[in-house]
Amino acid sequence: MKCKRCKKPAVVGLPSHHTAFCEECFYVYFTRQVETAIRRQKMFTFDERILVALSGGKDSLTLMLALHELGYDVAGLHIDLGIYESSVRARAKVESFCEQHGLTLQVLEMEAEGLPMPDVKEHINRPVCSVCGKVKRHYFNKIAREGNFDALATGHNLDDEVARLFANTLRWDSGYLSDQGPTLPAAEGFVRKVKPLYRLSEFETANYAFLRGIEIHSDPCPFASGASFTSHKELIGELEHRSPGSKFQFYDGFLKRGREAFKMLEKEVGEELSPCEDCGSPTSVEICGVCRVKRAVRDKKAAAAQ
Amino acid sequence: MKCKRCKKPAVVGLPSHHTAFCEECFYVYFTRQVETAIRRQKMFTFDERILVALSGGKDSLTLMLALHELGYDVAGLHIDLGIYESSVRARAKVESFCEQHGLTLQVLEMEAEGLPMPDVKEHINRPVCSVCGKVKRHYFNKIAREGNFDALATGHNLDDEVARLFANTLRWDSGYLSDQGPTLPAAEGFVRKVKPLYRLSEFETANYAFLRGIEIHSDPCPFASGASFTSHKELIGELEHRSPGSKFQFYDGFLKRGREAFKMLEKEVGEELSPCEDCGSPTSVEICGVCRVKRAVRDKKAAAAQ
Repeated sequence: MKCKRCKKPAVVGLPSHHTAFCEECFYVYFTRQVETAIRRQKMFTFDERILVALSGGKDSLTLMLALHELGYDVAGLHIDLGIYESSVRARAKVESFCEQHGLTLQVLEMEAEGLPMPDVKEHINRPVCSVCGKVKRHYFNKIAREGNFDALATGHNLDDEVARLFANTLRWDSGYLSDQGPTLPAAEGFVRKVKPLYRLSEFETANYAFLRGIEIHSDPCPFASGASFTSHKELIGELEHRSPGSKFQFYDGFLKRGREAFKMLEKEVGEELSPCEDCGSPTSVEICGVCRVKRAVRDKKAAAAQ
Repeated sequence: MKCKRCKKPAVVGLPSHHTAFCEECFYVYFTRQVETAIRRQKMFTFDERILVALSGGKDSLTLMLALHELGYDVAGLHIDLGIYESSVRARAKVESFCEQHGLTLQVLEMEAEGLPMPDVKEHINRPVCSVCGKVKRHYFNKIAREGNFDALATGHNLDDEVARLFANTLRWDSGYLSDQGPTLPAAEGFVRKVKPLYRLSEFETANYAFLRGIEIHSDPCPFASGASFTSHKELIGELEHRSPGSKFQFYDGFLKRGREAFKMLEKEVGEELSPCEDCGSPTSVEICGVCRVKRAVRDKKAAAAQ
């Protein structure tokens, strides 16, 4: 197989685009997809400050490097979840990556916030993955707001987005459907959220990270049950295999034609939000969900210690 | 496995309903699903006259028998497509079935209409399955209109409907999505169209036909390429296997929450329809699509004969 751009031997084949690239041309293709995403979905400009959520996985580190090399004003945020050796290793990967590339990094420790995930898992009677996701979104937004960032960027790739869209569509959840997309505009108390890798598949981000020699944290989380969207991703993978390009068409068609329908349906029920009494984050009740979890962990730990 | 209703040995297991039935109780379950479909989707009443499209396959014959036994005023319509031995056998199955059960049957020959499918395949440069579907829908509606029937019933089952919904959703085709459902109300020139088997899977209709001893026409059409929705049906089958009940939930959720969104979006573009100059069927141009095909077949046959 030869590179479609320069005819050198190809290293990455992309059936969904009926193409293949050598290493250098793959970088060009990859960067252009990121630029197209930012431009078409009006994500941010070169004058704005972007906070990038860094887990240490292939997607987030790839995103950080791509945005930095494109010249955007980025800073990283890593949340140390306190999950034993796994979190220690993830944090080390993020720290050495940022040091190597001269990138600004802030690390927030859930231990210091009274929310280490092992305590959440022990004391909160809900699926830990769901609470963990909520906690991360809460602090990503909080740090971005407090640091006056213009946007929060996450490494969600096309497969993540399609799996989520597929799950929301199977349930015809018009609330989530009206809200899903690569750019979620800022709202009272919430910074703008963007996903500049949404046009690139997991296969493509993994290849990019590998070819660029990015050292990633790839261990599965010891708390993850393996459920989540894995099953949907397999089905969608099968669909893509049978009909290359259908993953992107499904997502892009939703953005162009589907989402509008759900937005009309969800004519802003307009839930009243006010600042959380504990942390100031926007919430529809007095104390936000994360602070309620924090209080519960604290109370139950105290009770268990007595 | 025992029958969930009467504890006799079960003959049909239905994971999607977490249940299993003996033969008699399966019939009760099956009939109730048809009754629920007719009632919830406001399909027709006992005072109305229903034309049932009979291909000779398991779904259409099962539908005819179920509606007849429920006491509805039904008459069958079979379209003889003229596809060699295949059509001869299909027609024979339909005729002996209707004779056996004392059911009214009308047979319409495409040969007599100047539209035998072998001629269409030879002379019309479009996929024959697509033209054949168009021709059948045209004559189903025409005969129902001319016979003053209140509704046209077809044997589409849950798998047919879900595969179609899945395909329309993958493309986010809001025109089709706003229009899909088990009951399509009558409109100028079009009779009401209903699908009383939409709550029952292909597995269930096949079991019903088999257990009731219905002799069906099951040969694949010699003109079919095998493409159509087969691939989607496999994927959906896999989804159902992993999460029993998800097929019905997807379709039912669409009817309850999804379709509304697309109906709002497709605010009646209101294409002007007028009677076809050749056959009187509603069309947006002078000569309807089927009559244009008919003219083309006639002209090309004449040219070929010279």
